[in-house]
Amino acid sequence: MNTTQYLEANNQRFLDELLDLLRIPSVSADSARNEDTFRCAEAVKSALLAAGCTHAEICKTKGHPIVYAERMVDPKLPTVLTYGHYDVQPPDPLDLWTSGPFDPVVRDGKIYARGACDDKGQVMMHVKALECMVQTQSLPCNVKFMIEGEEEVGSSNLGKFLKANKDKLKADIVLVSDTSMISMEHPSIETGLRGLAYMEVELTGPNRDLHSGVYGGAVANPITILAKMIASLHDKQNRVKVRGFYRDVVDLSPAERKALNDAPFDEAAYKKDLDVDALWGEEGYTTLERTGVRPTLELNGIWGGYTGEGAKTVLPSKAYAKISMRLVPNQDSRKIARQFTKHFERLAPPGVRVKVTELHGGEPVVTPTDGKAYQAAAKAIETTFGKKPIPTRGGGSIPIVALFEKVLGLKTVLMGFGLDSDNIHSPNEHYGLLNYYKGIETIPHFYKNYAANH
Amino acid sequence: MNTTQYLEANNQRFLDELLDLLRIPSVSADSARNEDTFRCAEAVKSALLAAGCTHAEICKTKGHPIVYAERMVDPKLPTVLTYGHYDVQPPDPLDLWTSGPFDPVVRDGKIYARGACDDKGQVMMHVKALECMVQTQSLPCNVKFMIEGEEEVGSSNLGKFLKANKDKLKADIVLVSDTSMISMEHPSIETGLRGLAYMEVELTGPNRDLHSGVYGGAVANPITILAKMIASLHDKQNRVKVRGFYRDVVDLSPAERKALNDAPFDEAAYKKDLDVDALWGEEGYTTLERTGVRPTLELNGIWGGYTGEGAKTVLPSKAYAKISMRLVPNQDSRKIARQFTKHFERLAPPGVRVKVTELHGGEPVVTPTDGKAYQAAAKAIETTFGKKPIPTRGGGSIPIVALFEKVLGLKTVLMGFGLDSDNIHSPNEHYGLLNYYKGIETIPHFYKNYAANH
Repeated sequence: MNTTQYLEANNQRFLDELLDLLRIPSVSADSARNEDTFRCAEAVKSALLAAGCTHAEICKTKGHPIVYAERMVDPKLPTVLTYGHYDVQPPDPLDLWTSGPFDPVVRDGKIYARGACDDKGQVMMHVKALECMVQTQSLPCNVKFMIEGEEEVGSSNLGKFLKANKDKLKADIVLVSDTSMISMEHPSIETGLRGLAYMEVELTGPNRDLHSGVYGGAVANPITILAKMIASLHDKQNRVKVRGFYRDVVDLSPAERKALNDAPFDEAAYKKDLDVDALWGEEGYTTLERTGVRPTLELNGIWGGYTGEGAKTVLPSKAYAKISMRLVPNQDSRKIARQFTKHFERLAPPGVRVKVTELHGGEPVVTPTDGKAYQAAAKAIETTFGKKPIPTRGGGSIPIVALFEKVLGLKTVLMGFGLDSDNIHSPNEHYGLLNYYKGIETIPHFYKNYAANH
Repeated sequence: MNTTQYLEANNQRFLDELLDLLRIPSVSADSARNEDTFRCAEAVKSALLAAGCTHAEICKTKGHPIVYAERMVDPKLPTVLTYGHYDVQPPDPLDLWTSGPFDPVVRDGKIYARGACDDKGQVMMHVKALECMVQTQSLPCNVKFMIEGEEEVGSSNLGKFLKANKDKLKADIVLVSDTSMISMEHPSIETGLRGLAYMEVELTGPNRDLHSGVYGGAVANPITILAKMIASLHDKQNRVKVRGFYRDVVDLSPAERKALNDAPFDEAAYKKDLDVDALWGEEGYTTLERTGVRPTLELNGIWGGYTGEGAKTVLPSKAYAKISMRLVPNQDSRKIARQFTKHFERLAPPGVRVKVTELHGGEPVVTPTDGKAYQAAAKAIETTFGKKPIPTRGGGSIPIVALFEKVLGLKTVLMGFGLDSDNIHSPNEHYGLLNYYKGIETIPHFYKNYAANH
């Protein structure tokens, strides 16, 4: 029996085991759920042992624990370190979910639950792929697993864990499935991830909330001033107007641009899916470039004053916003955070005070397509999908990928099987059954190819 | 014994009775407090009867009831109709109060409680002034009281009550104490109130919250677009940029401007009190003009996206703001609401949809200083304060004052004893003991003067 046949014989159980994992509300941002999050770590540990790891442990951190597991076959074989996360995004707003976020159902060939795609569905593909290889005596590499519980809240304890466990985590390559493909018809591999600098700003006008009749017109309103400052962050061509922002950006070569834009992109379908009349972005770039290879600045949240029901005539003391910037090579997140802070502080007129805080950051990464790991993944996908994958540049950030290179000296191959339409971070997140099974089918081919080329 | 002597003999009880009223959490906006609000109406009714009203009733409305009471002396005498409200603003944010909002204390000569100044302290001045006049057999007018319970939520049922009770409410003048003076050293009478048009706007970009990495840079972010739209509502001279906004404004004559600006205004103290480095407002106008006789546009609230703790990388579907405009004669609040709606809808670029809702409105009013009622009030203040009051133009709005003129054909005299620093609508609202007693002392003089001139 080969791994694909084993998968076919066990696919119902593979689904049931994923649904079990999805039922655990491992919301890392919610301290009220800490017990559930810990329970999820234990479930992942059990799953890894059941799949064939010879050793598995829960590694404590200052926050949620990291699950480490391994199956060493032969020191002469290459070692693949798989990273994933068992924590999930908060499910709110709850009223927009069709079925409960932690009550997984399969509907129209998709598994609906918080974490179905990001990242439990994708983690389980690797766990089940290991079981397939072990049960068919075809595991050609040493395997190590590092599944953390804080990716959705910034992985603040991961760096320390990596630094303290360099020997334990020794490997040849890191494998991550936390990204998406263009579609099942057009499989792709993410060769680049944008970096991230996430800032929070607070503006203070008067020292207390005021009656907007008595004081309106006499003092600067921090909401109005914040709006003006935010409005000035993009120019008429929708370029980011933070001094120095584009200085370190390395543009794509004409050939790279062409390759990127050759990927299929249906603008009409994209607009229809989002129900917008028009797209918006940096002039002179396509949508794929705007989300993949151009740095951006985005407003993630804004609040100030009275936001409840009805009318309250207040001139508020404070206004706030959460602003994040996506970065591309060779922008540096600490430098960008400093540039933003300086720029934003300078923007503030007299009459308001500004406070800028950096919440978290991460560097952009690019994986070269001529590397051994990329080639192994590309060949695996060609085998199971019947066509070569398109190399894409992802809009999202996985800051720890840069960390793996910096601390462990390891490159990462991003072989994800999700789809952009999976609604990760939103209500009704889902993951295609076909995507789940295709991942379990493809991963053993990666291992085979990688071992063969090593 | 005259009214002043009676006041001095009973001042402790007058204070205790006010504190009792302040303990009732009559928050009209909070339906969970409906029983308390009703209880407060009953307490006001009892207080009016105890003060000397021969008749008092609780008049039901679709919302909170209106308390009506009267003491008719002689049909040949003029009738003064006193308006006030027994409902109060919501107390939040609670954590910023030094003592409980419904647990009144006297500190540094001030009564601290929600409603101390706006409006229970000022209502009780009239109730106690009536008692003083009745107990000293010196009531020179017929008196009627109309104390409602929905002023803080827009007085939506008052118009209907006025229309249905024109006979019952027949009077010669309306007396209202819901405004402030410059200071105890510089008493003043409000001769004008700004109108109000309160709007709520909702912007929708994509049809759901999106992952800001995957989609950031590709679609218009409703927070960014809202910020740009808000930023465009004021030009560089801080004039409001809504088409047609200033069309109906009647400028003050040079003499009126001089009189207004002759009122004492300590800019350094004003800035220090608010803890701002600089003031802000329409170029070419003083602070007194900006808050009293110029129309303004103010942001009362803004929200959208993720506003909780930490970082969530969302590109939100929606962003909202509450925007109110203060109006001056002869602007019309319905017309302004239409102009704003049209202007704001036009501002929206492709890629977002805009919805504008009018929450409530009210017209600006001006009381001529040569009228009999104004003269009676000015003389009363000169008697008790030792100096003539300065005629001022208030920034706030009391929309029902325009309603009194329209439905009952009655002018209103605004004789308020609060101070701008009383923190109405904010935490730690308070009312000076001296102000409370001075009001009780002054009001009988108004009645005497008004009856003498009639």
